[in-house]
Amino acid sequence: MNRREMLLVVGGAAVAAAAVSTGTPKPAGAQDMVMEPAVAGPPNADWAAKAEALMPTVTQTAQPPLALVRAVADPAAPLRWRMEKEAAADSLATRAFKKGDSFILDFGGHRTGHLAFRLETVGREPDAPARLRLTFGEVPSDVAEPLYPYQGVLSSAWLPDEVINVDYLPQAVQLPRRYAFRYVKVEVIDTSSGFSVRFEDVHAIALTSAQATPSPLPAPYSDLARRIDAVSLATLRDCMQTTFEDGPRRDQRLWVGDLRLQALANYATFKQNDLVKRCLYLFAAYRRQDGLVAACVYEKPKARYGGIHIVDYAALYNVALADYLEATGDVATARELWPVAKRQLEIIGQRVNAAGRYVDPGNVWIFIDWSRDLHKDAAIQGLLVFAHKRTLDLARKLGLEGEVAGYPALIERMTAAARTFWDPSVQAFVSGPARQVSWASQAWMAIGGVLPAKDCATALKTALARADAVKPVTPYLYHYMAEALLDSGLEKDAKALVEGYWGGMVKAGADTFWEVYDPAQPLSSPYGDIHINSYCHAWSCTPTYFYRSRAMVA
Amino acid sequence: MNRREMLLVVGGAAVAAAAVSTGTPKPAGAQDMVMEPAVAGPPNADWAAKAEALMPTVTQTAQPPLALVRAVADPAAPLRWRMEKEAAADSLATRAFKKGDSFILDFGGHRTGHLAFRLETVGREPDAPARLRLTFGEVPSDVAEPLYPYQGVLSSAWLPDEVINVDYLPQAVQLPRRYAFRYVKVEVIDTSSGFSVRFEDVHAIALTSAQATPSPLPAPYSDLARRIDAVSLATLRDCMQTTFEDGPRRDQRLWVGDLRLQALANYATFKQNDLVKRCLYLFAAYRRQDGLVAACVYEKPKARYGGIHIVDYAALYNVALADYLEATGDVATARELWPVAKRQLEIIGQRVNAAGRYVDPGNVWIFIDWSRDLHKDAAIQGLLVFAHKRTLDLARKLGLEGEVAGYPALIERMTAAARTFWDPSVQAFVSGPARQVSWASQAWMAIGGVLPAKDCATALKTALARADAVKPVTPYLYHYMAEALLDSGLEKDAKALVEGYWGGMVKAGADTFWEVYDPAQPLSSPYGDIHINSYCHAWSCTPTYFYRSRAMVA
Repeated sequence: MNRREMLLVVGGAAVAAAAVSTGTPKPAGAQDMVMEPAVAGPPNADWAAKAEALMPTVTQTAQPPLALVRAVADPAAPLRWRMEKEAAADSLATRAFKKGDSFILDFGGHRTGHLAFRLETVGREPDAPARLRLTFGEVPSDVAEPLYPYQGVLSSAWLPDEVINVDYLPQAVQLPRRYAFRYVKVEVIDTSSGFSVRFEDVHAIALTSAQATPSPLPAPYSDLARRIDAVSLATLRDCMQTTFEDGPRRDQRLWVGDLRLQALANYATFKQNDLVKRCLYLFAAYRRQDGLVAACVYEKPKARYGGIHIVDYAALYNVALADYLEATGDVATARELWPVAKRQLEIIGQRVNAAGRYVDPGNVWIFIDWSRDLHKDAAIQGLLVFAHKRTLDLARKLGLEGEVAGYPALIERMTAAARTFWDPSVQAFVSGPARQVSWASQAWMAIGGVLPAKDCATALKTALARADAVKPVTPYLYHYMAEALLDSGLEKDAKALVEGYWGGMVKAGADTFWEVYDPAQPLSSPYGDIHINSYCHAWSCTPTYFYRSRAMVA
Repeated sequence: MNRREMLLVVGGAAVAAAAVSTGTPKPAGAQDMVMEPAVAGPPNADWAAKAEALMPTVTQTAQPPLALVRAVADPAAPLRWRMEKEAAADSLATRAFKKGDSFILDFGGHRTGHLAFRLETVGREPDAPARLRLTFGEVPSDVAEPLYPYQGVLSSAWLPDEVINVDYLPQAVQLPRRYAFRYVKVEVIDTSSGFSVRFEDVHAIALTSAQATPSPLPAPYSDLARRIDAVSLATLRDCMQTTFEDGPRRDQRLWVGDLRLQALANYATFKQNDLVKRCLYLFAAYRRQDGLVAACVYEKPKARYGGIHIVDYAALYNVALADYLEATGDVATARELWPVAKRQLEIIGQRVNAAGRYVDPGNVWIFIDWSRDLHKDAAIQGLLVFAHKRTLDLARKLGLEGEVAGYPALIERMTAAARTFWDPSVQAFVSGPARQVSWASQAWMAIGGVLPAKDCATALKTALARADAVKPVTPYLYHYMAEALLDSGLEKDAKALVEGYWGGMVKAGADTFWEVYDPAQPLSSPYGDIHINSYCHAWSCTPTYFYRSRAMVA
C-alpha cells in the first residue's frame, strides 16, 4: 500500500477518513461507503465494575541507557539506518551541551514508559530556562531522520517528539507523558550563552503489567527462533499495560483483533489471564445499542464505547472468549459473557442468506487485512464458519448448546456456501468477479475447516506458490496464514513463514515486532509516512504462541 | 539602541556576552572588558534562614477571560497592533476547533500566573492526542506576529510559547509553568480528522504576593494620572512574587536596582514590607568573597549568589536599606545589615582617589542605563555621593556614626570632585573627553546634591532643553530623572516627564509598564527582537511613588 492509495481513502467518505485518522484499520475500498450508524447502548455497569476491579498493577522499572550512539546511513538496512556506539552511557554526565547540540541515547531495547533525568548546568549560574526537544525512537529512523515536514495522514499529534522548557536549573525532570522507545534523541534548542546543560541520572521508567519473566526457548531451537521468540515476548510485554494495547506508541487502544492474538501469546508466556478477563468485560460492558461488540474500546480518561465496528472483530470476540475458557477453565466468566457471544452471531447472522453465505451489505466494515487489493468475500465466509464452530463448542462446554440448537445446521449451510468459493481449476478458493486468489481466502477457509485438511493444504500451497496471489500487508494476517498452515499439517511451511517474515524483522534489527512489514517494501507505510508507523505492535507478537502452544518444531 | 550595536557587545568579551544572554543589563562598551572575578563567599546561613522564613504567601486568583479578540494591524499604534473584540468569552465553549484553527483570548489585563482549561471534544470519540501551541502575550504584538524566525540575542527559551500534547481526552489541563500575559493565543496543531476540540472553563490563575488593594488616586488627579498610577500598581503587583522580580515574563530575578524602585513604590501602596526585608537579607546572605553585594541573586530552585556585580547597584543596596529603615522604622534589621552597607562603600571606596573622584578601573560594570552612548563618569560620581550621604544618614539613625567617622570629609572631597564635572559655559555637568551632556549626569549629580538645588535645576533644564543631550533608554533612568527634578524643585517638569513618558505607554495601551520604551523608536529592543522584550517590568513601576510619596500634584 502506498501513500497515493491511502490518500484516495482519505479523500473518500468522512467515516472512512475518520477511521483512518488514528491508525485505526479502516475499510479498504470504502471511499463511498456510508457506514451503519454506531450508537452506544447503555453501559453494563456490573461488567464495567468487574473490568475496573481487574485493573492490573503496572510495574515501574528504572533502566539506565546502555550507550550514546550515532545513526549511520546504511543502504543495506531495511529501514535505512544502523546505530553505532559513540560512547559509554556513563560518559554522558561528563559532557556539556549548548544550543544546537544533540545526542542520542540507546536503552538497549524497547521500552514503554517515562523518561527522567537531572538537568544540571555548566558555566555561569543558569540565567534562562533550557528548551529541549526530545524525540523518542522505536527504530533508528525515528531519530535519524527529520519528522517534519510530516507527510502522513494520521494526526501529527502522534509524532514522538516533545518540546519542553525547564525552568529553575538545576532541576529534576520527569516527563509526565508515556512514550515508546529504545532511542531518545535530545536536542538543545537553547539555554543562554552563559551556560551549558549536562544530563545526569538519565533513566527510562519502563512500564508493563506483565509480571512473569518467561524462560527463553530452550537450546534445540535455532538462534533465530530463540530471537524471534524473545522479540515476541518484548512486544507483548510492552503492549501489556492496563489493557492489551495495540501499540504503545500510537493508538494505545484495545482492539478485539489484537486482543485475541495477544491473549494467545499471553497464555503461553506471561499468563496474566486476568488482564484478558478485564478486556473481555470491557468489550461486553460498552457495546452498540443492539449489543454488537465494538471493534475497540477506549480506556482513558474513562472506559467507554469505541464507536467503530468490524464484522470479523465482533465474530472473533467469541473466539477470544472460547480461547479464554480453554486456557483458564474459568467457566463462571465464560457463562456470564455467553449472552454477548450469542448476540454477536445473531446480529451478524442477519446477513447470512438462506444458502448460508454471508452477504456484505456494503455499509459495514470487514477488515481481514489492510491490503487494498484484497477481495474479502471468501475470507469473511471462512472466518464466520470458524467463529460459529468455536461458539458452538463454547456453548457445549458451558452446557448451553440448547441455546444454539440451530447452529449445526447453520454451520453446515455456511460450510456449503464456503465450498462454492473453491475453484478446482486453480486448486484454491477464489473470491469476487475476478476470481482472486489470496492468502487471506485460503487461510480463513482452512481455519474454518470448510474442506478436509488436505484440501485446505492444497489451497494454501497454491497461494504460496502463485506470484499473483494477494499477500498480506500486516503481521495480523500473516499470523492467520501461519495458523492455517499449522491447522492444515503444513508445519514446515508455517515455520518457514514465521522465520522468513518475523525473522526478516529480527534481521532488520527489530527489538519488538512492527505494525507493518512488507518485506518487498520495508519503507512503506499505510499512513504515508513511516515516522508515524508503530514498531511495537501487539498483533505481531504471536510467534511465541506458535513455538510454545502450537509446538512448532525446533 | 539597535540590534547591530547589541551584537557588537555580544561579539565582545565572554563575560559581557554572558551578561547579555538573559536580559541582564550589561556593560555598555564592554567589548574588550575582562571583568573582575566574581567568586561567591560562603553564604551567611543565619541571614539565608531569615530570608527563607520571610517567604511570602502567594495568592492564587482564578480569572476568566473577558473576550475573544482578533489582532488588527494598526500603523498608528506604537507596537503596530490593536485588539478588536470578536466575541464574548463565554461563546468559546460553544465553538469547535480543528487542525489549523486558532483563537486569541483577552483576560482584560496583565496576569502573572498559570493557565487552565478543560479540553473537551466534538465529533467521534477522540482517537488521538491533541497537540496545541499556546502563546502568551503581554501586548498584542506577542500574539499577532510570528515569534519565529527569532532575531534576538537572548535565549529563545524565554520566548512565550509552549507546545503541549494532551492525551486521553476529555482532560483537565493546567500548564505547570508560570507565564506573564494578558492575551493567550491557542493554535490547534492537530487532533485527528475525526474530532475537534472545545475549550471549557478557561481561566488564568493570577499569582502575586501583594495582598492589599490600594485605593485609586482620588478625583483631583487627571484621568491620565489615575491611569498611570493604576498601571504602576498592576506592574508592581505582577512583579511581586516570592521576591520582587524584575519582570515576570523573562529573567524573573531579584536585582538591587529594581528592588530599590519596587520598594519605594511598595511603601506607598501595598506596604508588603517584609518582602523588602526578605530581599535585603537575600542580598546580604549571598555575596562575593570580599563582601560585595551581587547585582542580582537567584531564588529558584534555591537561593544563591548571582555572580554579577554592578558598582551602582552595590551602592544602591545601602540606599535601599536606608529607605527601608525610613519606611518601616525597623531598626533591628537595619542594624543587623549595617555591616553589609558599610562594607559596600569600603570596597567601592578603594577606587576613590585622594581627590575624591571615583576612578573607573575598566574591569567593573557601571550600569546607570543601557544607553550605549552614555559617558558614565559624572553619573557614577553623583550616584556615589548620594550613596555615601544616605549611608552616613543611616549610620546616624542607628547611632553608629562612629564607625564611619571619615565619611563627612570623604563626602566633601567627593562633592568637590563632582563639581569639577560642572561646565559653566554649558550650565551643566559634562562627562568624558567629548564633554558629553546627558540626562544621567545631571540627574545623579542633582540627586547627589553636589551643588545647590537651584544650580542642579539649571543643569537639569539644560539637559531637557538640549536636543543633543544623551537621553535615557530605560524607564529605570527616567525614574532617576524624575526624582532629580522633584529634588530640585522642578515639580512641573517632573510631572510633564512622568505624564509624557509613562503616559506614552498608557496611551499605547500598556496594562503594565514596559522594560524598554523609547518614544522615538517604540519598536526598538535592546535584544534585537521585540518579542523577547518584557512588558511588565519592575523598574517601570515608580509613577505611583511620585504621586503618593513625593506628592507630585494632581
